[in-house]
Amino acid sequence: MTPEEFRTAGHALIDWISGYMETVEQHPVLSQVKPGDIAAQLPSSPPAAPEPFSDVLADLDRVIVPGLTHWQHPSFFAYFPANSSYSAILGDLASTGVGVNGMLWATSPAATEVETVVVDWLAQLLDLPARFRVGGAGGGVIQGSASEATLSAILAARERATAGATNHTGTLGNLVAYATTQTHSSIEKGLRIAGIGSDNLRLIAIDDAFAMVPSALAAQIAIDKADGKVPFIVVASTGTTSSLAFDPVDAIGDICQRERIWLHVDGAMSGIAALCPEHRWVLDGLDKADSFCTNPHKWMGVTFDCDAMWVADRAALISALSILPEYLRTAAAEAGAVIDYRDWGIPLGRRFRALKLWFNLRLDGVAPVQAMIREHVAAAAWLVEQVRADPRFELSAPPALNLVCIHHVAGDAATDELINAANATGQALFTRTVLNGRSVLRFCIGSQATRQHHVEAGWQLLKDLAPAV
Amino acid sequence: MTPEEFRTAGHALIDWISGYMETVEQHPVLSQVKPGDIAAQLPSSPPAAPEPFSDVLADLDRVIVPGLTHWQHPSFFAYFPANSSYSAILGDLASTGVGVNGMLWATSPAATEVETVVVDWLAQLLDLPARFRVGGAGGGVIQGSASEATLSAILAARERATAGATNHTGTLGNLVAYATTQTHSSIEKGLRIAGIGSDNLRLIAIDDAFAMVPSALAAQIAIDKADGKVPFIVVASTGTTSSLAFDPVDAIGDICQRERIWLHVDGAMSGIAALCPEHRWVLDGLDKADSFCTNPHKWMGVTFDCDAMWVADRAALISALSILPEYLRTAAAEAGAVIDYRDWGIPLGRRFRALKLWFNLRLDGVAPVQAMIREHVAAAAWLVEQVRADPRFELSAPPALNLVCIHHVAGDAATDELINAANATGQALFTRTVLNGRSVLRFCIGSQATRQHHVEAGWQLLKDLAPAV
Repeated sequence: MTPEEFRTAGHALIDWISGYMETVEQHPVLSQVKPGDIAAQLPSSPPAAPEPFSDVLADLDRVIVPGLTHWQHPSFFAYFPANSSYSAILGDLASTGVGVNGMLWATSPAATEVETVVVDWLAQLLDLPARFRVGGAGGGVIQGSASEATLSAILAARERATAGATNHTGTLGNLVAYATTQTHSSIEKGLRIAGIGSDNLRLIAIDDAFAMVPSALAAQIAIDKADGKVPFIVVASTGTTSSLAFDPVDAIGDICQRERIWLHVDGAMSGIAALCPEHRWVLDGLDKADSFCTNPHKWMGVTFDCDAMWVADRAALISALSILPEYLRTAAAEAGAVIDYRDWGIPLGRRFRALKLWFNLRLDGVAPVQAMIREHVAAAAWLVEQVRADPRFELSAPPALNLVCIHHVAGDAATDELINAANATGQALFTRTVLNGRSVLRFCIGSQATRQHHVEAGWQLLKDLAPAV
Repeated sequence: MTPEEFRTAGHALIDWISGYMETVEQHPVLSQVKPGDIAAQLPSSPPAAPEPFSDVLADLDRVIVPGLTHWQHPSFFAYFPANSSYSAILGDLASTGVGVNGMLWATSPAATEVETVVVDWLAQLLDLPARFRVGGAGGGVIQGSASEATLSAILAARERATAGATNHTGTLGNLVAYATTQTHSSIEKGLRIAGIGSDNLRLIAIDDAFAMVPSALAAQIAIDKADGKVPFIVVASTGTTSSLAFDPVDAIGDICQRERIWLHVDGAMSGIAALCPEHRWVLDGLDKADSFCTNPHKWMGVTFDCDAMWVADRAALISALSILPEYLRTAAAEAGAVIDYRDWGIPLGRRFRALKLWFNLRLDGVAPVQAMIREHVAAAAWLVEQVRADPRFELSAPPALNLVCIHHVAGDAATDELINAANATGQALFTRTVLNGRSVLRFCIGSQATRQHHVEAGWQLLKDLAPAV
């Protein structure tokens, strides 16, 4: 491909993306294809000769788009959002375009230093505690996902609890972790990856709001210590996946500090709400946490993948993850003058992810995100009133911010049928979860394109499809 | 940012990228900035108001480019390459533009099915053994990096060796892994992450070519078994990082099959050489391996991050990495009709990475990469002859493919000074390593822009700067 061909094709693709974003509402939210439908449209062997760009671009519409579940659709009410702003798309394109690997400071100093600065910008915008800010013992980093942030926190906590001995003995059976049934699956996956195992995860009792009960945590820690175990990490959620429950981080933090246990706080979606001062309560108690993560690629619009993670003590994280072969030694790192972010996460190689956060904060600022968050929270409050007024439905959990959990009073079969029927229309997409053993429809209002009228249409769809009592 | 502003800005950025790629040779390869230089040019707080795109674009040239070490520079002879083709840049842009999360088949079927198909296309082009192809018990997946592929292989091997018991007991001290001093650092990092620990990594003797000695492997396995240990994985390199040594995979595979030990083969850069039939020897013995990875983002041009990994038994990998909370259950997955790639790697969320491989193979085909590989291998052979003819230099390892390892006969100080002096010119970039306790300059010829005359200029630079004997 010549530079001229690239420019022509690139302009066409930019226009195609703009067209996709502007018309995404015309597609069914949930892809309507059946297993194997997309693969059947692709040759089973690679093309023998280069194809023109126009053919590939046409296949985006012909083959790819029908196979997409449209996360940018304004009626995407499933999972958590994965917003992608125009500004961040450009930042990501710039990153791809320069094609550098930011594994070490020396392999592209700008990749490291822009990351340090813009993650600190975000810390300021969220009003994070000083311990996570640049200049002290802590600091911030961009991980690919909250799963990787959770795993990194587990590894740092393991390192601290064992004084690094786990690098040598491989005997981790005494370490115990704490969460709840509502904590994201990445905590159990991370414990399994780290060799600690599912059986060493204690699921602490939750209250009626699905939040961890601190006294139950303290009691379980006492039991485990009496049993010769070593409590080493608590993962608290500031906004659980199923119902947006908020664990009482402040009270949990008191226990963790007293017991010298690493406290990781997972605010993957809801942490971003702290961009609005009136929602900053979501971070209450965070000054007692050892690590925290939230995803600019969820409710903020910084284009997957972009998880911002902060630690209060970067030494533990680096000690857990640093390996230094000869071919990665550099003078700047030996002098202690720079950060090598490869030591802050799982992979060695790293994209220049900070550019998309930099572009987003410079080109858009936070005002549009603040306005969006406020509109979504207001729409959720409106929805809560509608649910309360309809005798066929009940709230399954205390509503918070932008998530409303609903079940049909006739029971699980009715709720499950409603979810399946609504999703099959393609007009909206909801995720099912289980709360208190009951099937629940999650109505998450977080797509950047979602306005009040989309929420109203989604609610109308549910009302139309729901069986009578 | 309005759609119109996005299109205008996007066109300008596409043109900027094209300009960057076409003029990258004008920049010093190694960024000349000092620690803190880039951060000092950025505001310490986020901008209070949105800035025009023209300012951000100008800052790419003013702030970012001087802070880059230019991996796309034709005289980038450091590390391994990270090639970024125009076609793959477009594919990556398309992925960012549609903004979907391919964690499950249902969350965008095209993301899963295109990945399955194009990774199999690559398997065909590399002529991989049938056990890794679509249709049997194995299969392929795109990981973010070879580090993640190595870790995933370790976890799958651990799962098989313990029949899944490690999810419960957390006691891994009996498991033993095998590699050499030359194996990539990601094996030790992966063992530490997986809770197995550095002390349970056995470094097997190497021969004069820095390749693993199979008889030494067999002997160590016997010792460990007699000691009550459980040998569970061997990591063989088809092209080590320091010197491109090729472990004898076929003989190692015989031992692994006899002892029922998982064999992972790391061909991060050199595996791609198998795109050329005459270099397909790099994959000899691979039919005895349990897993294999190579990086299209290295010598091939599929834009970081894109590591292709294959397993012969996907059940072990999935068993190690699958966690299924209610909110991730889907009908298609329950029916066993689809792949959910979240179960094949560390993170839950996944970009639509397959698009960049699809674009690259369709728009460019493999002919340009084959031609590039052949030119690079020929240039390396030319370089070897020059080194042999100059009394100041010696080859530090048997040269293979596109990597030539050189030291100055006057000793480490002379070699180190030469590396530092050459890199400081900005005219070329080399990495230092240590082989046989000796400082070594690695001259890796792998950047897609590198032609014979760049290699000649790099060699001339070394000759000009090298002290006399």
